[in-house]
Amino acid sequence: MTEVRRGSLLESLHLGHAVVCDDTGQIVRSWGDPETVIYPRSSCKMVQALPLVTSGAAGKYGLTSEHLALACASHNGAAIHTDRVGAWLDQLGKTDGDFRCGPQMPADEEACHGLIRAYETPCQVHNNCSGKHAGFLTLSAHMGAGPEYVDIDHPVQQAALNAFEETTGLSSPGYGIDGCSAPNFATTLHGLARAMAFFASARDRSDRQSRAAARLVEAMVRHPELVAGEGRACTELMRAMNGRVAIKTGAEGVFAAIVPEMKLGVALKIRDGATRASECSIAAILVRLGVLDADHPATRKYMNAPILNRRGIETGIIKPTSDLIAG
Amino acid sequence: MTEVRRGSLLESLHLGHAVVCDDTGQIVRSWGDPETVIYPRSSCKMVQALPLVTSGAAGKYGLTSEHLALACASHNGAAIHTDRVGAWLDQLGKTDGDFRCGPQMPADEEACHGLIRAYETPCQVHNNCSGKHAGFLTLSAHMGAGPEYVDIDHPVQQAALNAFEETTGLSSPGYGIDGCSAPNFATTLHGLARAMAFFASARDRSDRQSRAAARLVEAMVRHPELVAGEGRACTELMRAMNGRVAIKTGAEGVFAAIVPEMKLGVALKIRDGATRASECSIAAILVRLGVLDADHPATRKYMNAPILNRRGIETGIIKPTSDLIAG
Repeated sequence: MTEVRRGSLLESLHLGHAVVCDDTGQIVRSWGDPETVIYPRSSCKMVQALPLVTSGAAGKYGLTSEHLALACASHNGAAIHTDRVGAWLDQLGKTDGDFRCGPQMPADEEACHGLIRAYETPCQVHNNCSGKHAGFLTLSAHMGAGPEYVDIDHPVQQAALNAFEETTGLSSPGYGIDGCSAPNFATTLHGLARAMAFFASARDRSDRQSRAAARLVEAMVRHPELVAGEGRACTELMRAMNGRVAIKTGAEGVFAAIVPEMKLGVALKIRDGATRASECSIAAILVRLGVLDADHPATRKYMNAPILNRRGIETGIIKPTSDLIAG
Repeated sequence: MTEVRRGSLLESLHLGHAVVCDDTGQIVRSWGDPETVIYPRSSCKMVQALPLVTSGAAGKYGLTSEHLALACASHNGAAIHTDRVGAWLDQLGKTDGDFRCGPQMPADEEACHGLIRAYETPCQVHNNCSGKHAGFLTLSAHMGAGPEYVDIDHPVQQAALNAFEETTGLSSPGYGIDGCSAPNFATTLHGLARAMAFFASARDRSDRQSRAAARLVEAMVRHPELVAGEGRACTELMRAMNGRVAIKTGAEGVFAAIVPEMKLGVALKIRDGATRASECSIAAILVRLGVLDADHPATRKYMNAPILNRRGIETGIIKPTSDLIAG
């Protein structure tokens, strides 16, 4: 999928699988094995957020598009994220201690340096998944369910599983525990792409699940800075596509994309889990689909990105393989 | 070489190549393609340091085993490293501005947080390669050569190339520019393992190059904390082997090992460049060779390491593949 060149040598190579799927669930294009079973990790947060909307919880608690974007986010822990998630917690009458995601040092430099300078440790609200967890807490409150909302048997996770199986069109063969302690359900790459195509075509349908999916896509593309953060691939590439496409990264080399204008879903998994390769590969596929400009500065940051060393000298390049470009 | 499991699923997989070579240059054991051409990156710093000793520069400037360990190091930028490299610069009558490695934020938490709290940016002495560059500056001063010591035509780099080709037993097919701006010469994985076997058997020979190699190995195993730093694989695994083996990591998934008691050299390259896999794989090979205890806590940190999430829950494991263990 992606090669790393230095001087005249191919220094490293990332293999992987990718699927482009239409709204009927059919594979339009694939690389590698579309039926490989993966954990989508954070790439499926919009699926995990569906019950928040379909249950009526989002309406009851007056959640805006900003809240919904944060529910789908792997954020940087910058003030724009933690202020909003903190206010959301207040609104629910909950505190940081009600989260079950664990603390994480923010990736945002200002927030990170601020904590270090204050000799403070991060809170759970800084966790990149705190928006998803605020969504879980909201749904749990709406359902009147217990506090251990990441337990596999908890109604919140069972609702997430139902939404996951409905949109992927497959029974999940199992789950792993994610970095944020929530269950992450396995599916095939084809299943994940099918779920993304469900979101891509949602605005054409009027059923409750589709209306919720359309709202979540709208929230993601409206607030790209809330879905990830400044300097991050999801934010920068969504901005470069001017609201035409929603994309979401996941740990261990997963990336998903929702392309409403073509009613297509995209899912990819780098076999070795490398983010540099998932970012380069999703950019290459979006360029191929004609929805991302190859010459946009944001695209150039992830696809055909120069490798700069500590004196700013260009020593190599990270680029899609010829298979991915031409195949 | 290494697999990453989460729940019941193989989530990610790292392919790679590895070679164990004896002191005659013959392959004792290999995985993948031993003739694959790689950049050794920092794994060959002890080779780059050979001319520092063979030229007489180390003797002339009174370098101790600490200096030589730092010349072979990819260090954390902790005070134990930067204090010593800073004093070395002083001794040469040079300043931080004479380095050509570029600045780098230290990986050492105390040093990193100290800079952030002081609103300071890192210097070149913080660069993980600053010991190697202090060695280059020393050799350059000894040779009376010019200040641009990372240029490919500079006598320092030509001396490094000669040592590299002598110990690998191969003409280098080319070079790339490393993260620290020094040329990094390409060779086969077999060539790198052969160079490591040259170091492993050096104390049996009395030629100048071999005596220099033996001194460098002695320096590395005597000062494991200078070769990397607290919490790092090279330091922790060398300590676990009680001075019996010298090991060195390199960027993009390279690892090399020198096993004097068996006169063996080891070199491995993870195809995708992942450090988590090169660390796990070198530990597995050292266990196989009988020089590293599989049950030592340091071994367990890199081989069969549990993946802990942000609440400290074990969610998976990073382990060698059955091919690597049994093959």
